[in-house]
Amino acid sequence: MTTIAFFGCGNMGAPMVRNLLKAGYAVRVFDLNHALSAALASDGAFVAASAAQAVQGAHTVITMLPHDAAVTSVYLDEKTGLLAQLFKGSLIIDCSTVSPQCARTISAAAHEHQLAMIDAPVSGGVAGAEAGTLSFLCGGSVDEVERARPFLAVMGKNTLHAGAAGAGAVAKVCNNMLLAVHMIGTCEALQLGVDNGLDPAVLSDILLKSSGKNWSLEVYNPWPGVMENSAASREYSGGFQTDLMNKDLGLAMQAAQQSKSVTPLGALAKQLFALHATHGNGKLDFSSILKMLQA
Amino acid sequence: MTTIAFFGCGNMGAPMVRNLLKAGYAVRVFDLNHALSAALASDGAFVAASAAQAVQGAHTVITMLPHDAAVTSVYLDEKTGLLAQLFKGSLIIDCSTVSPQCARTISAAAHEHQLAMIDAPVSGGVAGAEAGTLSFLCGGSVDEVERARPFLAVMGKNTLHAGAAGAGAVAKVCNNMLLAVHMIGTCEALQLGVDNGLDPAVLSDILLKSSGKNWSLEVYNPWPGVMENSAASREYSGGFQTDLMNKDLGLAMQAAQQSKSVTPLGALAKQLFALHATHGNGKLDFSSILKMLQA
Amino acid sequence: MTTIAFFGCGNMGAPMVRNLLKAGYAVRVFDLNHALSAALASDGAFVAASAAQAVQGAHTVITMLPHDAAVTSVYLDEKTGLLAQLFKGSLIIDCSTVSPQCARTISAAAHEHQLAMIDAPVSGGVAGAEAGTLSFLCGGSVDEVERARPFLAVMGKNTLHAGAAGAGAVAKVCNNMLLAVHMIGTCEALQLGVDNGLDPAVLSDILLKSSGKNWSLEVYNPWPGVMENSAASREYSGGFQTDLMNKDLGLAMQAAQQSKSVTPLGALAKQLFALHATHGNGKLDFSSILKMLQA
Amino acid sequence: MTTIAFFGCGNMGAPMVRNLLKAGYAVRVFDLNHALSAALASDGAFVAASAAQAVQGAHTVITMLPHDAAVTSVYLDEKTGLLAQLFKGSLIIDCSTVSPQCARTISAAAHEHQLAMIDAPVSGGVAGAEAGTLSFLCGGSVDEVERARPFLAVMGKNTLHAGAAGAGAVAKVCNNMLLAVHMIGTCEALQLGVDNGLDPAVLSDILLKSSGKNWSLEVYNPWPGVMENSAASREYSGGFQTDLMNKDLGLAMQAAQQSKSVTPLGALAKQLFALHATHGNGKLDFSSILKMLQA
Repeated sequence: MTTIAFFGCGNMGAPMVRNLLKAGYAVRVFDLNHALSAALASDGAFVAASAAQAVQGAHTVITMLPHDAAVTSVYLDEKTGLLAQLFKGSLIIDCSTVSPQCARTISAAAHEHQLAMIDAPVSGGVAGAEAGTLSFLCGGSVDEVERARPFLAVMGKNTLHAGAAGAGAVAKVCNNMLLAVHMIGTCEALQLGVDNGLDPAVLSDILLKSSGKNWSLEVYNPWPGVMENSAASREYSGGFQTDLMNKDLGLAMQAAQQSKSVTPLGALAKQLFALHATHGNGKLDFSSILKMLQA
Repeated sequence: MTTIAFFGCGNMGAPMVRNLLKAGYAVRVFDLNHALSAALASDGAFVAASAAQAVQGAHTVITMLPHDAAVTSVYLDEKTGLLAQLFKGSLIIDCSTVSPQCARTISAAAHEHQLAMIDAPVSGGVAGAEAGTLSFLCGGSVDEVERARPFLAVMGKNTLHAGAAGAGAVAKVCNNMLLAVHMIGTCEALQLGVDNGLDPAVLSDILLKSSGKNWSLEVYNPWPGVMENSAASREYSGGFQTDLMNKDLGLAMQAAQQSKSVTPLGALAKQLFALHATHGNGKLDFSSILKMLQA
Repeated sequence: MTTIAFFGCGNMGAPMVRNLLKAGYAVRVFDLNHALSAALASDGAFVAASAAQAVQGAHTVITMLPHDAAVTSVYLDEKTGLLAQLFKGSLIIDCSTVSPQCARTISAAAHEHQLAMIDAPVSGGVAGAEAGTLSFLCGGSVDEVERARPFLAVMGKNTLHAGAAGAGAVAKVCNNMLLAVHMIGTCEALQLGVDNGLDPAVLSDILLKSSGKNWSLEVYNPWPGVMENSAASREYSGGFQTDLMNKDLGLAMQAAQQSKSVTPLGALAKQLFALHATHGNGKLDFSSILKMLQA
Repeated sequence: MTTIAFFGCGNMGAPMVRNLLKAGYAVRVFDLNHALSAALASDGAFVAASAAQAVQGAHTVITMLPHDAAVTSVYLDEKTGLLAQLFKGSLIIDCSTVSPQCARTISAAAHEHQLAMIDAPVSGGVAGAEAGTLSFLCGGSVDEVERARPFLAVMGKNTLHAGAAGAGAVAKVCNNMLLAVHMIGTCEALQLGVDNGLDPAVLSDILLKSSGKNWSLEVYNPWPGVMENSAASREYSGGFQTDLMNKDLGLAMQAAQQSKSVTPLGALAKQLFALHATHGNGKLDFSSILKMLQA
């Protein structure tokens, strides 16, 4: 039975662990917030008391951590960093959303330690993690992605190979920047229509059949009541928080600055989500940005 | 045989006339640029020498004109305006993209003259006009839209009822504003990815399978070579010109100003297309905005 | 004694009338809101019961009205429009802030009626109107501006000749667009500094001695308490209302659209003031936009 | 005779060194580009062959370096970092424009080494450095700023104390963000005016006498020919390069992201300067952004 060490047992990590357990893997879990990892004991996970204990006997490591600093610490910390402790030849799958720069740095360090590594941030959210329908945007060599594929297949439905190390992180920030832009654009279009007398459901339907069509309209309609199971229809609770979108847009802006890319709408979207968070909406689903446009 | 008077025989109007002729209607055509209307004689249209001659015997009028001023002149001109000349009970279908205000004004005047009228701007472009697959975004009463439906069915595949008079025009500007936003957003995301080492086709594929998905990516990819038949792949010729997108965004900004709607991304998209046109790209397809982001 | 007909007796118009009266002119006042004109009787104005009565015996007309529609109605109305009623050779001074297009249209019509006319919107606000220190941004011929100068000198301290008819209106929208931009820019810079531990008064002082210097910082500091007599220091009451800035930015955007000018910061400033108004701050001084940036 | 070690002998550093020499200080200079430091020998500087040699006998260090990485390397490098080499009680003055975070980090490290340190980025450009009229925006304790004052007084005319360590860096990025905003705003206003028939010099004069007044208009008019000695009047050569403004705006965006500050106009200004640089204008003076708005 293959043993996996899994770091980060929050809203995303926990259901991913459960799907690995269901598929028959032995999973050793660790989280700095021990309550989160401990909760997985009843699902059959081995709850490690330390990072070092988590990787004992494991040739595969999966991380789902909140930001660059956490990922960097787990892998590169001078005393406790995993890279220096893992068996040569082990496979690392980092599912965290980190900056491309962070992904490239850690991948290079992993290779120096003769470890395989891919960056594999996800698309699909908590619902996708629970249903095992995540998409993984992968950066690494073909061999590395192939080695990771069986594990990813258990936690998601799409393994998309974006390119070399760091490419998964790049694809993720590109995707979320584009998502931010069409979500706000969708809110603006719906509000403009409603302000001019249209029904939001009728307009949504028309836009979906026209060239305005996009994912926000299709599966995440921001207008309360238009789509039964949307975050908008449950007062923007659950879903993908404004604070997280804001963080991802920060990564996009950093990446753009380093690559000297011009992203005017992405930059303005960043500012608008930052404004929305400033006014106390950071914990609401990101589609609540619609409210900002309303009296 | 039902007789239709058709005004405006340009890139869009001409193929619409041909589809009406093929369906067996008698079509009397007029265009201020007589060469355009004359060219339809060989298709079986009656080429009128004046607006007055065009409407002789016609109980249905269709207009496909370039802007508010043209439409206002055709219908409301003190001397030659059609509203005062048409048979009571006639049906007017205005397919031009005009401001909601213009659509409402003319509709109200038509009703005063006991005429039926809908605003029915189209989505689908020249290709849709030729293939008879346009979508019509209709504003008017249910009865008026039903009366228009048989004619629209000959020229397109979707008759979408947006609401009362002017609602078609509103839906059109909302749609095109949203299209502008996700097109630029798509260009920014692709350029950011490419600047960070990704292949534009691979990234496009990933975004389409993720939450960045939108119509621009799906059927109008702006990166040359990614999509065989896109405007981008024929050097941005044909398609939907930057100048026309710019005009439509102007209508959106006007409407937003009147309804006091807030459209930050729409406004910035307007500025970016205006900048693109200023630099000599007005006649290129609007997806050429990608070039602005490039060195 | 020269007789002046004065239309529009609101916050701006009333003190302007008083300054004309103090200088010894006979002033005949009219306002659709009769209470406003009647209030000037005690200052010595003749309160006219109609526009026609206001211009009796007057060879000079001054208007200070809220928008294009009001100005157009007063001068061009088919039945009551002044242009058709005034003595040939009369002088018209329109101090309203209108669109350049409106200013040009009325000026051309005035010339057809053999009347002299300048557009002369003001800078300086209610305080400037009361103190007689307004600046007039004038459009018209040199002769027309010279004829107007003695009247303007009584109501203000600067008569600035911007160019031909309409140029005053153009200069006004350019100025207010620039004001909007540096006011928001100033708010952003101060907030960024304060969020990073700086004292707003110390930072304001530094920026004023550096290249960030601008009018908003110098005489209209948006941070409460930094400047004793600022609108910010009286809870953003009085001053130049957000709604009015919003209106002027609307004129700027219209003018830019017609002249195909690109104004990205101006357009974004317009959106931000519209957002601020949407959230219920339309009646606050425009420098209250600072509050939008704050938690 | 007080001995100063000076690092960074480029366009800014070289004239600063000369002013220190003229005031009678012994200056030991070092630059990774040895040609730059060597050129100062004829002015009386001692040209050091290494950083270690530069600080021999010096109790005061001044740095004028291009970015965070250079400054961090000079002070904190594990092998050659100055902090570990300087005499206890020495004074460090960093005049580089760095991120507030970098300034705070190095200052804290300096204090750990019992060194005094201020961040003191400058305003005034190459001309100010040559004329000795720079403004220094200082972060540090009152005592530290007082110790630095005599040296700063030789190189500039204003020593402005912004606050504690890092406050100078904060003030600098706030100032330059605001400068970027009012420069672009000025360009937009002038272009809008000219597109509507106004003379740029006349309009500039009017705006300067009105509420649009700002430093860009007053001393740095971006329209060629309006101001005799402006960068605009010498084809945007010399002055403050677009690339440098772009870098400073990058620092502002980073700082804003960390402090969760909202800076919509600052962010758009950043994008516009990035776009301008992308199109090959990085080496032109930043006021050349006007050209981007023109056909």
